[in-house]
This record gives sequence, structure tokens and C-alpha cells, in this order.
Amino acid sequence: MDMRVRLTLAYDGTGYNGWQIQKDGLTIQGELEKALSRICSASIRVHGSGRTDAGVHALGQVAHFDPPPKFLNVPWNRALNAVLPPGIRVLDFARTDRKFHARFSARAKQYSYTLWTQGAFFYPQRRNFVWNTGPLDLEAMQEATTCLTGSHDFNCFMNKGTEITDTIRTVRNILLAPGFTPQETVVWIQADGFLKQMARNIVSALVQVGRKKLSQAELKSIIQGRDRALAPATAPARGLCLEHVTY
Amino acid sequence: MDMRVRLTLAYDGTGYNGWQIQKDGLTIQGELEKALSRICSASIRVHGSGRTDAGVHALGQVAHFDPPPKFLNVPWNRALNAVLPPGIRVLDFARTDRKFHARFSARAKQYSYTLWTQGAFFYPQRRNFVWNTGPLDLEAMQEATTCLTGSHDFNCFMNKGTEITDTIRTVRNILLAPGFTPQETVVWIQADGFLKQMARNIVSALVQVGRKKLSQAELKSIIQGRDRALAPATAPARGLCLEHVTY
Repeated sequence: MDMRVRLTLAYDGTGYNGWQIQKDGLTIQGELEKALSRICSASIRVHGSGRTDAGVHALGQVAHFDPPPKFLNVPWNRALNAVLPPGIRVLDFARTDRKFHARFSARAKQYSYTLWTQGAFFYPQRRNFVWNTGPLDLEAMQEATTCLTGSHDFNCFMNKGTEITDTIRTVRNILLAPGFTPQETVVWIQADGFLKQMARNIVSALVQVGRKKLSQAELKSIIQGRDRALAPATAPARGLCLEHVTY
Repeated sequence: MDMRVRLTLAYDGTGYNGWQIQKDGLTIQGELEKALSRICSASIRVHGSGRTDAGVHALGQVAHFDPPPKFLNVPWNRALNAVLPPGIRVLDFARTDRKFHARFSARAKQYSYTLWTQGAFFYPQRRNFVWNTGPLDLEAMQEATTCLTGSHDFNCFMNKGTEITDTIRTVRNILLAPGFTPQETVVWIQADGFLKQMARNIVSALVQVGRKKLSQAELKSIIQGRDRALAPATAPARGLCLEHVTY
């Protein structure tokens, strides 16, 4: 009877104050807990695989919660989608035992970051989903990913505000690929884990390479220097999307 | 000195009450006139190639206005984009003589209508830009476009609220093509002109064909019947985008 429910979630992060419940503003976790309390008439905590920042999107966020025993056979995708706002959708659900934990069982994550790399014009319909960088040297960027893949101390790409001390992470793969429109380029990043705003900081460093303002050697020495102050400013949240969590 | 400025505009129609200025609510025309009055300190009328409905988008709307003489050399794209809301962008501008009229000089228009044709899931990030129809028989739809192309009396596809009496239009081309995501299908429609909500009504009829609720023969007789009441209900505004106006 110790049932746990695992959800796969997609959301449009625009207008949300990120995943985690805050005192003020709408959050994804807050909307999910509100929806569950409407369905179950009880206060239920939802645990995500990790926080996403304000304005960051998801197509494969994973979360879990423990429903009251009498809600054993609820079709959670339909039940939740009926009460959630349209910008948050449950793509899938599964019943699992309580050994599964959305955050602690996660083994790897994959993010996408979408860049608008066309110079002359911009689609306003895409403004909440891309960073409009203008033209970039994509080959130089793909080449520079070789400095980033593998196990490194990524302290230079961790923003302040966490108590994490082990800043070593393994980036398995970084790939540049075409996006939804011919004007877009997507940076796909897969790692065993991400430090605070690490994905956005990796992207901003790669964009500096694409703008020819940072050489591959300089990127290498930034990583080795372990100093956040030496790395480029964080890329905007709106281009980032949590695509997949591996368990 | 009789200068006229022609604008090519893109906008995210979400949250706007359509092109045309209304007593209440934000409109595209209203935002443009507001921006021009800020730049020129004068009240300036903007003429569009045609109205778009509330929630309809554009990547190639065309409009014109006559600036005061001393604003001869303004770079209108940069000037307007600096004051317009981010959901409305001037893609291009050109100086022209006063023989050009955005509405009366238009010879043809092209719309796109985006359908989400995947069944099992839906990206909430796309909710303001697609009609989520679920799986459709795309081949039957493409086949049925043969009833629609050419010159026809399209009275069956004209919604109430205009004083137009000549309801004959020439549809030059209808094409089904892949969309931004692999789950999307775009219906492209080019015609010499469109009656009120004709594009959305054509799409809704094609979707009924794709759902196997309407045969090609039935579609043909709906068109010949000239009766709006016999045709399917209008498709949602959010899937529609004015792509191009030909002069």
C-alpha cells in the first residue's frame, strides 16, 4: 500500500517563478500541489528532480508524490490535467514503490538551450523560448565542447546560493543541432548532474566562443581557474528546457 | 514630399484583441499608432493589409502610414522596435509613394495554420500557436484540397459580420507540410483574398476530412451549397498566422 506516483511533466515556464514554491508568485510545484489538494482534499508534497529557474521550461521534468491510500487507481495524467493551468501538462505517470525518489534516484539529466542565430529578423512568437544572439560561429562552438565534456570541477559555472561543496560533475555530451525553425540552433547538454545555473553558464561561455570573444584555450583556463568571476555572465533563462531525467 | 512608409510586421497575437483598434483591450494597430505618436508627437493612422482576429499571429503582415515631413529619414524598424512591446516586431520597412496602399494594393495573401497531430502528448509551450486536433488522415486532407483550389463562391466559409457581397475568391494553393516540431502539420493556404474567417473555416473543414467525419464529396457539396450553416465550426484562432502579402 506504500504507493508513490511518478509524473513526467512539461511546462511553459513563462510567467512562473520557477519550480520551487515561493512566498510570492506562481510556481510549478505550487500549481501541482494546489491541483493535488483539489483532487485529494489533502495537503500533498510534490518532489521534483530538481529546481528549474523562473522562465525555464520543461518537456521531461520528473516529480513524485505519495497519494492518500484511497486514491490508488486515479488516472493521474487526466485528473491533474483537468485542473492544472494549460501551461503545465502531465505527459505521463507511473505507480512505483517508495524507493523511487525524483531527486535522489536521478542518474543524469538532459537540457536543451535554444539560440536564435539569424541576424536580420526575429520571430516575436519565439521570444519566450530562445536567446536571440544573432549569428554565431557554430563550428567553433562545437569544437569548444571538447573542453567541457568529461569530468571536471565546474565551480566556474556555479552561481552563488547553494551549499554544495563537491563541484565535480561529468558532462557526457554536448551537441549543437538544428532547432524548431531554420533560424534556431539548439545546444543539447547531458550530464550526471548540474550545479546551480551550470547549463546556462556553459551556454553563455559557448556563445562567447561563437562570437569569437573567447578562444578554446581561454575557455579551458576559465574551467581550470575555478573562479566564477572569470566566466561569462549567465545566459537568459528563457532558452533553457529540461528535456529528460534518467533514472 | 508625399512620403508613405510600408512596414512588414511580425506579432505574437496571444493576448491581443486582434489587429483593429477596439474600444477595449490591446490591439496591434493600437500599439503601432501609440508607438508612432510617441516617436512623432502626432496622431498617425496605420493601415493594415487586413484585420487579423484576436489570437491570430503574423510573420508577414504589411501596413502603411504617412509620417510628418520632418520624419523623412527615420530608420523605422529600429525606431518602432525600441518602443513597441516585445510581442510586436517590425521586420522591415520601405519608403514608397502614396499610390501604395497596404489593403487596396494587395494582390494575394498566404496564411499558415498549425495543427498538433500527435495523440499521446502535447507540448504546453506550443499551446498558443497550434490547434491540438490529435491524429488526422493527412493524405485524405491533401486529396480534399482539390475541391478548394481554384475560383469558387466561398460563401459557406464566410462568417457573419461583413458587408461583402462578392464572395468569389481564388485559392491558388493549399499545401500540407511539416511544422516546427515533428508533431505538427502546417496547412498553407494562398489566395487572392480571404473572406471573414475563411482561412479558419477551410482548415476546420479539412480537419473534419482528416477525422473521417467528412468525405471529399460532402465537402464539395458544402461549397456548392453556399450555406455557412452546413459547414463545420470555425477553427481556433491560435493556429493561424498571416505569413505573406503579395503586392
